Amino acid sequence: QGILERLDAGEIVVGDGGFVFALEKRGYVKAGPWTPEATVEHPEAVRQLHREFLRAGSNVLQTFTFYASEDKLENRGNYVAEKITCQKVNEAACDIAREVANEGDALVAGGVSQTPSYLSCKDKAEVKAVFQKQLDVFMKKNVDFLIAEYFEHVEEAVWAVEVLKESGKPVAATMCIGPEGDMHGVSPGQCAVQLVKAGASIVGVNCHFDPDTSLETVRLMKEGLQAAKLKAHLMSQPLAFHTPDCGKQGFIDLPEFPFGLEPRIVTRWDIQRYARKAYELGIRYIGGCCGFEPYHVRAIAEELAPERGFLPEASEKHGSWGNNLSMHTKPWVRARARREYWENLKPASGRPYCPSMSKPDGWGVTKGAKELMQQKEATSEQQLKELFQKQK
Amino acid sequence: QGILERLDAGEIVVGDGGFVFALEKRGYVKAGPWTPEATVEHPEAVRQLHREFLRAGSNVLQTFTFYASEDKLENRGNYVAEKITCQKVNEAACDIAREVANEGDALVAGGVSQTPSYLSCKDKAEVKAVFQKQLDVFMKKNVDFLIAEYFEHVEEAVWAVEVLKESGKPVAATMCIGPEGDMHGVSPGQCAVQLVKAGASIVGVNCHFDPDTSLETVRLMKEGLQAAKLKAHLMSQPLAFHTPDCGKQGFIDLPEFPFGLEPRIVTRWDIQRYARKAYELGIRYIGGCCGFEPYHVRAIAEELAPERGFLPEASEKHGSWGNNLSMHTKPWVRARARREYWENLKPASGRPYCPSMSKPDGWGVTKGAKELMQQKEATSEQQLKELFQKQK
Amino acid sequence: QGILERLDAGEIVVGDGGFVFALEKRGYVKAGPWTPEATVEHPEAVRQLHREFLRAGSNVLQTFTFYASEDKLENRGNYVAEKITCQKVNEAACDIAREVANEGDALVAGGVSQTPSYLSCKDKAEVKAVFQKQLDVFMKKNVDFLIAEYFEHVEEAVWAVEVLKESGKPVAATMCIGPEGDMHGVSPGQCAVQLVKAGASIVGVNCHFDPDTSLETVRLMKEGLQAAKLKAHLMSQPLAFHTPDCGKQGFIDLPEFPFGLEPRIVTRWDIQRYARKAYELGIRYIGGCCGFEPYHVRAIAEELAPERGFLPEASEKHGSWGNNLSMHTKPWVRARARREYWENLKPASGRPYCPSMSKPDGWGVTKGAKELMQQKEATSEQQLKELFQKQK
Amino acid sequence: QGILERLDAGEIVVGDGGFVFALEKRGYVKAGPWTPEATVEHPEAVRQLHREFLRAGSNVLQTFTFYASEDKLENRGNYVAEKITCQKVNEAACDIAREVANEGDALVAGGVSQTPSYLSCKDKAEVKAVFQKQLDVFMKKNVDFLIAEYFEHVEEAVWAVEVLKESGKPVAATMCIGPEGDMHGVSPGQCAVQLVKAGASIVGVNCHFDPDTSLETVRLMKEGLQAAKLKAHLMSQPLAFHTPDCGKQGFIDLPEFPFGLEPRIVTRWDIQRYARKAYELGIRYIGGCCGFEPYHVRAIAEELAPERGFLPEASEKHGSWGNNLSMHTKPWVRARARREYWENLKPASGRPYCPSMSKPDGWGVTKGAKELMQQKEATSEQQLKELFQKQK
Repeated sequence: QGILERLDAGEIVVGDGGFVFALEKRGYVKAGPWTPEATVEHPEAVRQLHREFLRAGSNVLQTFTFYASEDKLENRGNYVAEKITCQKVNEAACDIAREVANEGDALVAGGVSQTPSYLSCKDKAEVKAVFQKQLDVFMKKNVDFLIAEYFEHVEEAVWAVEVLKESGKPVAATMCIGPEGDMHGVSPGQCAVQLVKAGASIVGVNCHFDPDTSLETVRLMKEGLQAAKLKAHLMSQPLAFHTPDCGKQGFIDLPEFPFGLEPRIVTRWDIQRYARKAYELGIRYIGGCCGFEPYHVRAIAEELAPERGFLPEASEKHGSWGNNLSMHTKPWVRARARREYWENLKPASGRPYCPSMSKPDGWGVTKGAKELMQQKEATSEQQLKELFQKQK
Repeated sequence: QGILERLDAGEIVVGDGGFVFALEKRGYVKAGPWTPEATVEHPEAVRQLHREFLRAGSNVLQTFTFYASEDKLENRGNYVAEKITCQKVNEAACDIAREVANEGDALVAGGVSQTPSYLSCKDKAEVKAVFQKQLDVFMKKNVDFLIAEYFEHVEEAVWAVEVLKESGKPVAATMCIGPEGDMHGVSPGQCAVQLVKAGASIVGVNCHFDPDTSLETVRLMKEGLQAAKLKAHLMSQPLAFHTPDCGKQGFIDLPEFPFGLEPRIVTRWDIQRYARKAYELGIRYIGGCCGFEPYHVRAIAEELAPERGFLPEASEKHGSWGNNLSMHTKPWVRARARREYWENLKPASGRPYCPSMSKPDGWGVTKGAKELMQQKEATSEQQLKELFQKQK
Repeated sequence: QGILERLDAGEIVVGDGGFVFALEKRGYVKAGPWTPEATVEHPEAVRQLHREFLRAGSNVLQTFTFYASEDKLENRGNYVAEKITCQKVNEAACDIAREVANEGDALVAGGVSQTPSYLSCKDKAEVKAVFQKQLDVFMKKNVDFLIAEYFEHVEEAVWAVEVLKESGKPVAATMCIGPEGDMHGVSPGQCAVQLVKAGASIVGVNCHFDPDTSLETVRLMKEGLQAAKLKAHLMSQPLAFHTPDCGKQGFIDLPEFPFGLEPRIVTRWDIQRYARKAYELGIRYIGGCCGFEPYHVRAIAEELAPERGFLPEASEKHGSWGNNLSMHTKPWVRARARREYWENLKPASGRPYCPSMSKPDGWGVTKGAKELMQQKEATSEQQLKELFQKQK
Repeated sequence: QGILERLDAGEIVVGDGGFVFALEKRGYVKAGPWTPEATVEHPEAVRQLHREFLRAGSNVLQTFTFYASEDKLENRGNYVAEKITCQKVNEAACDIAREVANEGDALVAGGVSQTPSYLSCKDKAEVKAVFQKQLDVFMKKNVDFLIAEYFEHVEEAVWAVEVLKESGKPVAATMCIGPEGDMHGVSPGQCAVQLVKAGASIVGVNCHFDPDTSLETVRLMKEGLQAAKLKAHLMSQPLAFHTPDCGKQGFIDLPEFPFGLEPRIVTRWDIQRYARKAYELGIRYIGGCCGFEPYHVRAIAEELAPERGFLPEASEKHGSWGNNLSMHTKPWVRARARREYWENLKPASGRPYCPSMSKPDGWGVTKGAKELMQQKEATSEQQLKELFQKQK
């Protein structure tokens, strides 16, 4: 059954987790460029992560093609061999995802994301050509559906959806925005409306914000769609980091990004709360993005097991709400084998010399840069730099 | 070259990280029992984790035989198939470790850990017989050296060393104790002395405490050895969690154990500081335990690259001290591409409703139970339970 | 010179601090009722606190007549003697304030605050009669001007201003509201407009919120006045507690109110920042409310000394920005004798087992009760109680 | 009845609170020098504070003669008039304390504290002469007993006790040390023994550390006395600040000292716990030092009211355990009118950008300087400075 059949039937679809962060920690992705050449260099590592998500309950395996557009991959330094072309990366990603998907009954989704071409003000045709190249591979490899994700500007997201839509396959579109809307000031509700009008059957958000903030953004999208009398399925794939303190541009502006985010990592219990809240909001495609490890995905599947009637395979190694502690030799550890305990725990950071919130970097610039960006002049690094130094 | 040749020559040996925690998050190990049947059930997952540690710079791959003694595996519930015997688990662990070790030039270490037999007051012969069974496999599979690790009582650790020593292979021994010493009140210094006298060539600590606390314990071991005019190599494999607030029995008594430890996870920069400090203390076998992911091991190897003259393979995907951020489009993210930034960052938890420290559970019991334990009467769960309830 | 002459001339007027909190800690005011019978019972204590504020730089001494309306004082339990009538409390308050004001050149302001009569839905005439009784005393004692403060509903505040205005004396009016507006949903801008139209020459906020939040509220008032083309002087007298986490009804709903607020107390440096920010916003009547001790008032006067050309008397015992530490015997304490040090200090709480923010109590009720309150039906305690229990 | 008659009879004696910190906030004492010229300059302010402590339950009023030795007062800058001599300050302090003590049935204690003479290595005779001058005033004014307090070196404390003892009046002696002992490395137990042998009838600690740490120090003193088979009454007058993070020299080395300590201020409930714990430890002279406000002293008296059979006068304005909130209009505030609520509250700091603990300044110096100080060579500021800069 295809993605739309499942969603139309009212099923819950569990998404997968975040590849670039997980594989960075495993040693296969470089933070900064965040490109997926690992599909060619170390297919076994990518395959294993897919398998873990599948086993954790993912119904969709996204091809590891984040930032795999040709214009992005061109920017790689000498840490990736010449022969690892854009086409090879995308093809390998499709092959690996399909191989693992066939081990269960998961769907394969081909994914595109925002491009340097757009940010450097290439025109619509040029940007669309970039997406088309990836789509060609996805069609050749016959993925089950398509996702346009991680867009900061709805204009570019719409272009991507328009390209993908021509394939005839279902298209999902998620933006990496918060309740304040996209970088040009378009509200979440308006973003959703534009994406659906462009052809997306599923809309929502991914990345950049924590589960609570992301759900608030999807709620605004839902309101926007209702006001416009449009229908679409809703989707959320947030960070697995707590980011109550981040500004409009999300976690990238937090001082801890990307190498000091550990204390913000959410627990499996945070994810169960997220999954429940997403479900109650009407979202039926529920997954995660950066920071989501297999056990976070399993927590979605476990929380919604009552509605779905089954547990994921990986739950053979996990007692619901810690019940596998009930045989511990220490009575006070056994006392942790219950839902109330973990639901109410306020976990300590173990870091008494650290604060609980940060002020995002660069927000002053962001504010000043906003008008510039709206005119698409902010792509000049020199300009931003000057603005930044002036405001220091 | 064997482990002792390397250490005797003054080389730094980088250990590996924690299997049970990493594989629990990946979906292959059950928290609570923490047993390694994955070596038989999902060898590809174990193999992949070994590979990641190897790539991150580990010079030693420990067989995934933690809690793989026969008496421990017997206690498994129905989540592990009957046919997965103790022998099969240990054999598969050796095969997988050797296969991956051969992909580089790592050594394979066969590991034993504390047993239920000891805790339930079986006699010396019975406990030794348990270790002997695992050793038989290690000898058959010809591991390079042996590690007795995760012992709370030096008496049992000494028995383990005595068994392992008869093989003729080098023996390392680490206890999961803090500066207060073992559960019978033996000081770290005395523990080290007893272990060396029993035949261990390498001594130190693993698990239960954070890097700082663990290094303090090793320092006390070193002092004890010096006072006793004994020589041995030093080894540390601490947690990758901040635990300034834990009591004598370590992180197990923290309310966050084991499903709410996320905010305590150390950063790669914390590990670089740890590696440097360990090196300065004279420790030359430097690795990690629970919570240590491949990128933490890489951080050890990167910090000590100047001394060793080379970087690990996985550093091709990692810029030293964040230097791979130097090409980010945002100037304030580029500003993070330097050592001073990450060294001085006090990372926020993103959890303003949570405290920074916890009071360990059960410490009252622990204190009351101490005398009981010293007479080995505390193994009765009923007794502990009553004690616990009385003190509530 | 009168208050309006001073403000019209562009002078900065420094207000005083909070009486009920300061005198509660000194042992003369009962938390809960918060009534000012101390003016009769212990005039020396009230006099001393006035003196300290005068010495700290206050240009206005408010009579200690908070909650001194007859309907409020009637509710006292047996902890206040019968003979201590409303009239006596108000008269004594005027006498004490005038006595101390004459020791310097401060003005005396007679103050009224919100009444139980309004909250229990008495009609306009009845409520106005309550204010009139206090006003009669103020006129007899010839205070210099009048303040209507601590109103949660602009309707009642307008009635108070109307009564006070008939005296012919200048009237200031401050509400204890935040940026969300009054309890009936009137925005800060609209509140300000209504108060000025009713006759207030000075408008602003007092109590319930921290300095930052209060300044934001005054900013909204200023915008409202500008939009309505009305002119008035601006005034702020916030809490001296950090309350970033409080909801619409302010600090009363915080779990720490009123006996656990200590960790939230602001430093003198926080106040200097507040004074500067208030000044830059165009506020010229700058004082404080609950939690403001004499040294906080002094901090206002010291921060604005460059603009005013003089320091308060109490600065003879205070070095600007800690410069009196420059002779300390310890070099690292001497290093604290400078502005940069104190401006940048992030003071630790010394409470590693406590969180940094709280969730306000009763917000659910507040939300549910809002509509009720708007119809003035929520005064029934029984109703609120049921609502509360239903929502638990 | 004198102090010893009371203590010998098993009575609890409630001490008073901290003068220099309270009067600094009120505008009468200069932080840095911390000298008590206010007794002459502003007797009404000193009198009022004494009254508040008396009303709060203090059985002893200490003369406000902290740092009122001649050698200390000589160092004042031009902020104190020439005519305000050491003798006048001490005499005025005695007169004010006696005047207020007579309003109740409190005792007056004349107090001396550590001297610059000792720190600059004057000899025993010279140092003793300094104490003698203050004692002459105390004898002339006929105080009830004497306190030698705030000594960092037991040697100087012993000299003080020897001088005071000759008066024939009872002598109490408290040191500002923690569990690590005095600045020359003498343990708390040994300090207590020396003080009792020198003639002190009451020994304990004051200032520098929080209640928990101070009680631990007194416990060590008690053990020392028991081991030496000496008898003495025990006394504690700790800070009203949480200082779990301070080093050997106490709160002075904390970065927040003295102008950013607000978030560390203890609540009245913290003090009730302290009073109970002190009582259980056998301490019968229970008071406070810096940070202790009248309501903190009242909390001691309220906690121990069951044992004593009466409440202090100021309790007429204070409901035990918040019971005066039981009539609040909001049900969720009424819910705070009970002991369990306040005992279990973990009060939030309202400061999410601040840490919960600090690293003490200068601890490196302290450590390095320790040996120097033991030879009394560290008094040279130049030396310390160099040491400090070397260690930076």
